[in-house]
Amino acid sequence: MAGGSGAEHGGGSDLPLRFPYGRPEFLGLSADEVECSADHIARPILILSKDTKRLPWTTGYAEVINAGKSTHNEDQASCEVLFVKKKTGGTISTPNKNTSTKRRSSLPNGEGLQLKDNSENDGISLYFWSLFDGHAGSGAAVVASKLLHHHIVEQLQEIAEILKNSAVLPPTCLGEEPESPATNSRTLTRAASLRGGVGAPGSPNTPPTRFFTEKKIQHESLVIGAIESAFREMDLQIERERSVYNISGGCTALVVVYMLGKLYVANAGDSRAIIIRNKEVIPMSSEFTPESERQRLQYLAFMQPHLLGNEFTHLEFPRRVQRKEVGKRMLYRDFNMTGWAYKSIEEDDLKFPLIYGEGKKARVMATIGVTRGLGDHDLKVHDSNIYIKPFLSSSPEVQHPGLCCMAYGIGRILN
Amino acid sequence: MAGGSGAEHGGGSDLPLRFPYGRPEFLGLSADEVECSADHIARPILILSKDTKRLPWTTGYAEVINAGKSTHNEDQASCEVLFVKKKTGGTISTPNKNTSTKRRSSLPNGEGLQLKDNSENDGISLYFWSLFDGHAGSGAAVVASKLLHHHIVEQLQEIAEILKNSAVLPPTCLGEEPESPATNSRTLTRAASLRGGVGAPGSPNTPPTRFFTEKKIQHESLVIGAIESAFREMDLQIERERSVYNISGGCTALVVVYMLGKLYVANAGDSRAIIIRNKEVIPMSSEFTPESERQRLQYLAFMQPHLLGNEFTHLEFPRRVQRKEVGKRMLYRDFNMTGWAYKSIEEDDLKFPLIYGEGKKARVMATIGVTRGLGDHDLKVHDSNIYIKPFLSSSPEVQHPGLCCMAYGIGRILN
Repeated sequence: MAGGSGAEHGGGSDLPLRFPYGRPEFLGLSADEVECSADHIARPILILSKDTKRLPWTTGYAEVINAGKSTHNEDQASCEVLFVKKKTGGTISTPNKNTSTKRRSSLPNGEGLQLKDNSENDGISLYFWSLFDGHAGSGAAVVASKLLHHHIVEQLQEIAEILKNSAVLPPTCLGEEPESPATNSRTLTRAASLRGGVGAPGSPNTPPTRFFTEKKIQHESLVIGAIESAFREMDLQIERERSVYNISGGCTALVVVYMLGKLYVANAGDSRAIIIRNKEVIPMSSEFTPESERQRLQYLAFMQPHLLGNEFTHLEFPRRVQRKEVGKRMLYRDFNMTGWAYKSIEEDDLKFPLIYGEGKKARVMATIGVTRGLGDHDLKVHDSNIYIKPFLSSSPEVQHPGLCCMAYGIGRILN
Repeated sequence: MAGGSGAEHGGGSDLPLRFPYGRPEFLGLSADEVECSADHIARPILILSKDTKRLPWTTGYAEVINAGKSTHNEDQASCEVLFVKKKTGGTISTPNKNTSTKRRSSLPNGEGLQLKDNSENDGISLYFWSLFDGHAGSGAAVVASKLLHHHIVEQLQEIAEILKNSAVLPPTCLGEEPESPATNSRTLTRAASLRGGVGAPGSPNTPPTRFFTEKKIQHESLVIGAIESAFREMDLQIERERSVYNISGGCTALVVVYMLGKLYVANAGDSRAIIIRNKEVIPMSSEFTPESERQRLQYLAFMQPHLLGNEFTHLEFPRRVQRKEVGKRMLYRDFNMTGWAYKSIEEDDLKFPLIYGEGKKARVMATIGVTRGLGDHDLKVHDSNIYIKPFLSSSPEVQHPGLCCMAYGIGRILN
């Protein structure tokens, strides 16, 4: 976990858990073994046996309990082989009922994750690996490890038929006859172009429903959009269901999807995905921290200062400003600066900085050290009513290397 | 110019020009020659003679009038050798009075730009190259080419003494005794760190004026901050002075500064700086366009929808949405997406998209094709009262290659 308070899972809530606590399903641990894995003295390393054929692509895994920050391991992981069935008719299956996914094995007693009797004509097979670095409780990470892949499958279902048809670009509008080529290739005079194009507000004598350019969207962009939507839907589900379930804390989410011969790496948080090829380490994700997202966070606070609850300033200073320094000139950074400049210190600058600390100690609102992820809807600044969530984003950055054969690793940052 | 309306300099205003129109000072053209340079049939190429010793570093230059988009060439350039004097006492010189700069030659009749009788002990010598791609009038580009370097010198004056003292890191607070090492190296218990650090709001029993970390700021960060501040001050000066002068249009700004053995490239716009080394082209700037800044612009519009004047939608679609498509599902992108997904088209989606068009035809609010620069304070969407300026940023991206010996080029994109 990176920052956040140390609340344990299940503590302080009368609501039932959404899913019982455990270690990743593919480890196949008994309740006793789960208990042993949390031994903070022995700190056993849990690995998959090399003989295990359970996971695809000779996937490996290792975990160990942290050195005492939380009673239980708040991190989670999952690995799934899934099949996205083409959508037929108008019914949309709901992820929390598990009906949208055709999973072809049950773990840990099944004979391993593999696709069996699905014809590729009916849909798309999909390999899914994920890792969730939990903080301030294990609830969000457990829920995400059980449900995020269902959201991805649901998002992909709508576009499965389009994705299968790789010879034709995705249609801009569904259920519409393609425009005639003459309409699409219509060109504009330079004068009309400078006026902003046909159909722009205020451009005279042009019908508002015509268009002269149409962006061509690639199939891969639809997969990326589906993964992005799935992350948002997962976060909204946690937000909704926390009124009836105890879903504690928050988590980062790092997901790898392989489908239709292509790899997608989606990251919301500060975990890392790497590819090792010819002994070279290729980073496949970038980290989202108070430092890497400083300008986004400061910009939001600048535009919506009420989010700071009159306790924080959106400006960054190299250290806390002291009262005796009011009137003096001190180094600062605003949202639109990467360099530093001096400003005259005012009363308002005595507030605590929105972003404070360096490296692993950098925090948003003195509370959290990671700026993207799932959950955290109830996280507040200590002893205040200021919510942190508006500053956290559930949107992943999706990288799409277009490679498919390499040693591959995902992991959390040790801290 | 990239987008913008075709208003000519001086047209439609009774106010006097801030500076008379001309070509870059270092070309040394007569009024007749300036007139000839705007011949849209002959399109003469204006270059510096190779024998000219006027400009430092054997700087070269070439320009040609555009193919008819504007009567006069709206682009400008400047090259200056400057000396930043250490600030003495409390007086701050104003850039528009030219007193902050010690320029050691006058052009075009001087014997060339060079530093002469300044002792390096008194301050810092500085080489400055700039390029301004004007649009919708030449006023902003002319003003920026005459004044931006003065703003940079003014910003550097305050920190000249600090920059000269390269052995000691810049002080966090000016006019303050350095903290004792014991105070600065004070460490925290993990528990206190998790609470958010000493002095965080709500952390009990800790005096609010203490601090446990202090960011070390490098000298180069101060130079970058000074250049960033200078761009903002230049834009504010144009905003202020347009009530008493006719300062038409807007411009991009691409600046190269060399000082204290280091190179800084500051870019606000879609011009390009490159380094050529061993026949390899190294980009030294990135372009700021509706496409490259889509997410920033959509995010701003999402948070401040009144800026869209009820005419635009912050969502992106591959083409204009037609009324008959309401209720159907169409591809779209929101501010937090890089991929595309389908959404059900609503009435609101019929509005014109904030970002529209591809490549060189991409526009913000159907009007402008560049998203950073100076000026444009009066630019509105055609036939409306919607201002574009809130979406434009005057903040440059400053790159700092740390190299000093190479062939170097800056230029505007031909379009």
